[in-house]
Amino acid sequence: MAAPEIEEQLIPLRAAVKEFGDLIRSLKEKGAPKTDIDRAVNELKARKKKLEERELALAPKNISFFDRLKFEDLLKQRFFYDQSFAIYGGVTGLYDFGPMGCAMKANMINLWRNHFVLQENMLELDCSVLTPENVLKASGHVDRFSDWMVKDLKTGECFRADHLIKNFVEKICEDTKTSASVKEELKEILAKLEGFNDADMHNVIVKHNIKSPVTGNELSEPIAFNLMFPTMIGPTGDLKAYLRPETAQGIFVNFKRLLEFNQGKLPFAAAQIGSGFRNEISPRQGLIRLREFTMCEIEHFVDPNNKSHPKFERVKDYNLILFSGCNQMDGAPAEILPIGNAVAKKLVANETLGYYMVRVHKYLMRVGVDPKRLRFRQHLANEMAHYACDCWDAEILTSYGWIECVGVADRACYDLSQHSKATGEKLVAEKVLSEPKVVQIIEAVPNKAVIGKIYKTEAKQIFTRLEQLTLEEVEMLEKEIVSAGNAKLRCGDKEVELQKDYITIKRYEKKVYTEEFFPSVIEPSFGIGRIMYSVLEHSFRQRENDEQRVYFALPPIVAPIKCSVLPISSNPRFEPIMDAVRSELVKFSVSYKQDDSSGSLGRRYARTDAIGIPFGITIDFESESEPWTVTLRYSITMEQIRLKVNDVGKIVADLSSERMSWSEAQQIYPKFEQKSDA
Amino acid sequence: MAAPEIEEQLIPLRAAVKEFGDLIRSLKEKGAPKTDIDRAVNELKARKKKLEERELALAPKNISFFDRLKFEDLLKQRFFYDQSFAIYGGVTGLYDFGPMGCAMKANMINLWRNHFVLQENMLELDCSVLTPENVLKASGHVDRFSDWMVKDLKTGECFRADHLIKNFVEKICEDTKTSASVKEELKEILAKLEGFNDADMHNVIVKHNIKSPVTGNELSEPIAFNLMFPTMIGPTGDLKAYLRPETAQGIFVNFKRLLEFNQGKLPFAAAQIGSGFRNEISPRQGLIRLREFTMCEIEHFVDPNNKSHPKFERVKDYNLILFSGCNQMDGAPAEILPIGNAVAKKLVANETLGYYMVRVHKYLMRVGVDPKRLRFRQHLANEMAHYACDCWDAEILTSYGWIECVGVADRACYDLSQHSKATGEKLVAEKVLSEPKVVQIIEAVPNKAVIGKIYKTEAKQIFTRLEQLTLEEVEMLEKEIVSAGNAKLRCGDKEVELQKDYITIKRYEKKVYTEEFFPSVIEPSFGIGRIMYSVLEHSFRQRENDEQRVYFALPPIVAPIKCSVLPISSNPRFEPIMDAVRSELVKFSVSYKQDDSSGSLGRRYARTDAIGIPFGITIDFESESEPWTVTLRYSITMEQIRLKVNDVGKIVADLSSERMSWSEAQQIYPKFEQKSDA
Repeated sequence: MAAPEIEEQLIPLRAAVKEFGDLIRSLKEKGAPKTDIDRAVNELKARKKKLEERELALAPKNISFFDRLKFEDLLKQRFFYDQSFAIYGGVTGLYDFGPMGCAMKANMINLWRNHFVLQENMLELDCSVLTPENVLKASGHVDRFSDWMVKDLKTGECFRADHLIKNFVEKICEDTKTSASVKEELKEILAKLEGFNDADMHNVIVKHNIKSPVTGNELSEPIAFNLMFPTMIGPTGDLKAYLRPETAQGIFVNFKRLLEFNQGKLPFAAAQIGSGFRNEISPRQGLIRLREFTMCEIEHFVDPNNKSHPKFERVKDYNLILFSGCNQMDGAPAEILPIGNAVAKKLVANETLGYYMVRVHKYLMRVGVDPKRLRFRQHLANEMAHYACDCWDAEILTSYGWIECVGVADRACYDLSQHSKATGEKLVAEKVLSEPKVVQIIEAVPNKAVIGKIYKTEAKQIFTRLEQLTLEEVEMLEKEIVSAGNAKLRCGDKEVELQKDYITIKRYEKKVYTEEFFPSVIEPSFGIGRIMYSVLEHSFRQRENDEQRVYFALPPIVAPIKCSVLPISSNPRFEPIMDAVRSELVKFSVSYKQDDSSGSLGRRYARTDAIGIPFGITIDFESESEPWTVTLRYSITMEQIRLKVNDVGKIVADLSSERMSWSEAQQIYPKFEQKSDA
Repeated sequence: MAAPEIEEQLIPLRAAVKEFGDLIRSLKEKGAPKTDIDRAVNELKARKKKLEERELALAPKNISFFDRLKFEDLLKQRFFYDQSFAIYGGVTGLYDFGPMGCAMKANMINLWRNHFVLQENMLELDCSVLTPENVLKASGHVDRFSDWMVKDLKTGECFRADHLIKNFVEKICEDTKTSASVKEELKEILAKLEGFNDADMHNVIVKHNIKSPVTGNELSEPIAFNLMFPTMIGPTGDLKAYLRPETAQGIFVNFKRLLEFNQGKLPFAAAQIGSGFRNEISPRQGLIRLREFTMCEIEHFVDPNNKSHPKFERVKDYNLILFSGCNQMDGAPAEILPIGNAVAKKLVANETLGYYMVRVHKYLMRVGVDPKRLRFRQHLANEMAHYACDCWDAEILTSYGWIECVGVADRACYDLSQHSKATGEKLVAEKVLSEPKVVQIIEAVPNKAVIGKIYKTEAKQIFTRLEQLTLEEVEMLEKEIVSAGNAKLRCGDKEVELQKDYITIKRYEKKVYTEEFFPSVIEPSFGIGRIMYSVLEHSFRQRENDEQRVYFALPPIVAPIKCSVLPISSNPRFEPIMDAVRSELVKFSVSYKQDDSSGSLGRRYARTDAIGIPFGITIDFESESEPWTVTLRYSITMEQIRLKVNDVGKIVADLSSERMSWSEAQQIYPKFEQKSDA
């Protein structure tokens, strides 16, 4: 909640949102037609957007200095990352990480592995990027993973339909000749654009006579463009495949092996770190929308009837900023709540979801996200994937607005049941019933002699298939045979015909002690590039009284390079000490950058600050007295301590891996006052 | 060199190789036609192969126990890795790494980063997998990166031509009805197969009437199949792209940024860890031939006139097993040589190449390759890529024979000059001349007014292009204008026409102090999957007197899990001690597996040994006396020590990162004698 004087200005906007939130609730209650509800939801979103823009505009500007131009300059100049294949003209949506970006990304991934895989005992996988079409058909990606695009009817050039409309509206609104009423109408379109379907967008294009911004030619109706990169495996071209759009499917298709590895027990979590690929129609916004990106995904498999988490008790008092669906409908702001409360009042669907939200929050704190610019926003019912029960996005506020960086979703059993259907493999877990129960069994028992004689080598497959049939399938089969005298049975790629005397339908009661079920899946899914971008924005600083000295105040654990090694002069007599320092650093796997150029120490510090190096080791004339010592400087506070060369590797390693804080180090080692740090 | 009694049996085979080695040398001296030399090289290779097979057959079998069936069983059962998409029938050449394989791979990669990037101060990059066609056209991959395949003329099924012939020959040779003379002929084919071109293979197929092994249908002539996976970027389908077949090209196209990052100085090395993709026609042999694989590549850029290495002096006495081209031609065995000698006598082309061979060897030792089954084999002149000057493969002996796992090549300036040509960007470095020199300058000076008037907005591009012309290009232009009155100039995608009065040719002398040059590139390139497979084979063991107890004796630094945590019984009073142990381990990022099942301690040790866990922490009844202690067991020797719970995280971390050896730990902590370790 903002300051009272700001809140006052927001009152009418909040009320405007609530009006439509209430309307939607009442429409749903009355069972109104879906189109009416959808229209109301679009209006709700438009009003929410206005509210949010106003909130951001009114927010105090001094949260942190930020100058995007200087920021991007520094990133490019120190090669954190830059456009791929630039010497060939570049490709939009593809970025190469340079030495600084690459090291930072590797550190974020290592921390992720430590924070999740190691500390939560997850089963990590590393699966193929190349994925056959049938896998992604089952997961729904072949049919539904697409964006709307329009084509220039003469040149064939393509535009993402929503971006095209947005750019058109923005251009017209900037034009001073545009009348106020037209502007008002166009801004309405902009606000509702996110909820538009193909027909809505087509109407806008026709009504406002929107043409290709490049050629002025007519445009096609919006058509669905699948966002997966297609390829083929093997030389014949028969095995159609895609580059995976997410790593999750690799985990689902390995479910049986993982369950076995875990001795058949639930719950367990599997994790994967790797590349995902999405053929965006016209990607912009740097690392925020990429065609190739690093994801970290967790699939936590759990009994759908028991989504409690053994460690939830430990985190229940942890506070999160939650922007619930309910508050969004009411025009109310996000609120701070202990996760225990949120789960108790069913705001967050279950303990496991809540536990992961806390773990996600802690991870984002460790990598350096500003807690004031982080919230969990719940998906509204119509935003959720059709299979999900509850979904909360960790959104981070950047200069591009609130960006979704981690999704924490309860995917229910959608994926496992889809792959089961597609393959005939039972991707289920088994649990012991609290008391045995009696069930009705209906089996199709094959007449093995007859089937064997007719189907020869295929017979075995038919027997297996018959065993796998569900109760409903056996009853269907029975009905067909009774009415037609024979029935068709799908068996792998083929269909076989079963005559009446091939099978006997057997009915009996059976006492069972265990039950098979599809596990539910709780999925936290991280976009590493987006998080990295946010951390860089949040950690960008300039020194007081010196606008030229900009730097990154990165947490040591993610900093690309942990320390600098700076001899106070290039005098060769420092070489043995430098050598000893370097070998201590290597022993503890501490990355370092040596700068023995002739610049002043202050200038060299500024250079290392600029790339986010948190610690600076200086070898000065005092260093030579036995036992050799060096000074250690912390870039954020510019304070220094003095310590033995023998300790320097271990101490910087401890400081860089959160085993020791800077203030702890200051208590152990004497303070060092430097003469000049320009 | 093998034992004398074995060497004796090899004498005739060695002589047979040398005969052709000598023949090739004399053919080359005489300037014989290339086809004659090629034919002799094929024969040489066939004879080398026979020699090698005999050597392997005669080698003492007790180097190490190896039972491939048990080995593969264990890998599958404990999910180190397995075929991808198995529930969908699987895809050949694609593997998923399970929790054990994934952790081991991550450890190998982290060690690689430490050993190379950190210790050698390399610039690590992380570039796009998606690569536009023009980049790979310039690198030569679009035109030359292919294998020969034949097609079933009726069904279109494809076979890799050499594999097809190999399988055919093997099948015929196994047939007892085949005559000895036919067998002899076929075995000759097998031996020479590696050197066959399309015509050679077609001749064999026709002569022996080889048909499709599946349908018996006729086969096509061998056709070149490009091994890159094709795709398209963006919605129009205009931007053709491939999945990168190697990571190297991403480094080359970033050369300018890297040189700038390194303040314009040479030499420097860049490195990249990432996926490569090759659409093998019919991959077999598990991790050894994959369609998707992890590579680690280094591109070390150096002045072509000075390939010395500052740290070479430190490694010059390091011994390597070298199998030089010369020895291969002479039928002589590989020999052990200090790298200093090998470089001094020009066996290894230069210091930088030699330095990297040593670093590669050390890395392979650290991950657990058996030094006796590792050699560096020099490429024969006709094996080398056309642009390389010298190339040595680190080959590892596995149950599949000698496998190329790391290539260390001097690629000269091939790639940088190709990308320069394709883009017009000068991918060069600059060096200060020891003394200034006078050079002849020929420039095409544009008549800016005239060109500007005619070409308008394009004029600027023409001026830039004219500036970039080389001396030779200006002379060509001049000649054309003199003879024809005008000349064509390629300018980006277009061609423009220059009339006589558009430019003036200016000649003058200039004193220059610096010189631009294309750096040479030394490239060590690692296939992580192949190395991992070799390490697993080399570390596979069985306990004496117990064939059932098989295990992996992995170096702690690459072991998937560093330690087990085993309470001697499941008594809940151990829980606080267990908790303290776990939090110590987490503090030092040590991975662990807890096994509190009811099995005997011996059986639980066996289970953790099987997945290569090097250290076992046991909480026993003695643990409870203050200060709490635990026992620590080393799986290879099964020895144990006793230490405080407070020390256990740090000690296992040190033992697992080579900061402490087991024998050092034994000197610090008291020995613990266990009652039973079944």
